[in-house]
Amino acid sequence: MKKEKPADKIRVKRIPKRGIYDREEIYEILDKDCVCHVSFVYEGYPVIIPTIYGRKEDKLYLHGAGSSRMMKTLASGIPICIAVTQVNGIVLARSLFNSSMNYESVVVFGKAKMVESAEEKNEGLAVVSDQILKGRWEEARLPSAKELKATMLLEVTIEDASAKRREGDPGDEKADYDLDIWAGVVPMIRSYGPLIPDALLREGIPAPLSTEKLYK
Amino acid sequence: MKKEKPADKIRVKRIPKRGIYDREEIYEILDKDCVCHVSFVYEGYPVIIPTIYGRKEDKLYLHGAGSSRMMKTLASGIPICIAVTQVNGIVLARSLFNSSMNYESVVVFGKAKMVESAEEKNEGLAVVSDQILKGRWEEARLPSAKELKATMLLEVTIEDASAKRREGDPGDEKADYDLDIWAGVVPMIRSYGPLIPDALLREGIPAPLSTEKLYK
Repeated sequence: MKKEKPADKIRVKRIPKRGIYDREEIYEILDKDCVCHVSFVYEGYPVIIPTIYGRKEDKLYLHGAGSSRMMKTLASGIPICIAVTQVNGIVLARSLFNSSMNYESVVVFGKAKMVESAEEKNEGLAVVSDQILKGRWEEARLPSAKELKATMLLEVTIEDASAKRREGDPGDEKADYDLDIWAGVVPMIRSYGPLIPDALLREGIPAPLSTEKLYK
Repeated sequence: MKKEKPADKIRVKRIPKRGIYDREEIYEILDKDCVCHVSFVYEGYPVIIPTIYGRKEDKLYLHGAGSSRMMKTLASGIPICIAVTQVNGIVLARSLFNSSMNYESVVVFGKAKMVESAEEKNEGLAVVSDQILKGRWEEARLPSAKELKATMLLEVTIEDASAKRREGDPGDEKADYDLDIWAGVVPMIRSYGPLIPDALLREGIPAPLSTEKLYK
């Protein structure tokens, strides 16, 4: 994870200027999302599963039912790869060849470890909850002892990681700038629609404070 | 891929009612996006890379520089796994335990094959381009012979695939419906911001027709 000489496994080979190895910058990208893709080898085959995550310091937390195949497989300590990708725009160059996407992505290599104690489990689950919607942990009913027991929490120490980012204008071939073809970026934005109350929500319960910041 | 008895590799084990094995429904989800995560085993380790794709019939097309490590590795015909995930909302239950996300996801297992002929390459690249922005292929400068040669196009036949979907209200424990806690869904929406013209765009070139439908 040294900035100067990234290990071969994580070094960005194609278009090296898009590679980011600085840990704080990697954390910043990880903190913008809450859904990742986890990959592992199962009976010789690569498998990917999307799941939610939370980050605290150099740990990623994943959770799921203790009975799930993925959780049991990951908990065995096999190597895993986790990817987080934000797509920010369609880059329309004058040529199709130079057309691209604007994005930020992180790839993490590590191993998962099961978190055993109820206290640490609650802490890790709060990290995941905060990553999805900060403040919700304090509003909702906390996990019961039974629910906590049924939930598996995995802690992944980020051993190696790298990020890639593309932003800004297209880069066209010199001669193509004379063409009568529009070029630029179509920004892609993630936003939140108006809250949809549960059909069984009792009268008089106001929208939660935790959601207010989403609409600012 | 039979609807009644999905193969063990693709069968959705956790919450089986969320599993979808119907090919048309799987294609419908694949056609809503253009960015996937591709996983493969490299020197014994799982690796994930995000990339753009296009679908036509039972084929997914991936493209990249012929010199890229990922493309060369995939072209060797090793088993690969491709995931496409759309996140549609945060599901706020009264309890943290039953809180969830609304999403649609597809996982595809298959192998990639390099497309060799210039004609088929152009066809496959047009599929990818259409998936990102229908109509752009007809507006932009087409790939030159040299550009086409530098581009590797991979065709992945969808051998096995399954999808998962969660939608609608949270499902709370019976007793929790009496709590004074707001429950419902925060919809997550992907939208497009106003076009950003390239800083070097010549005067008098109108915004492309292909982008108009994004703003309807």
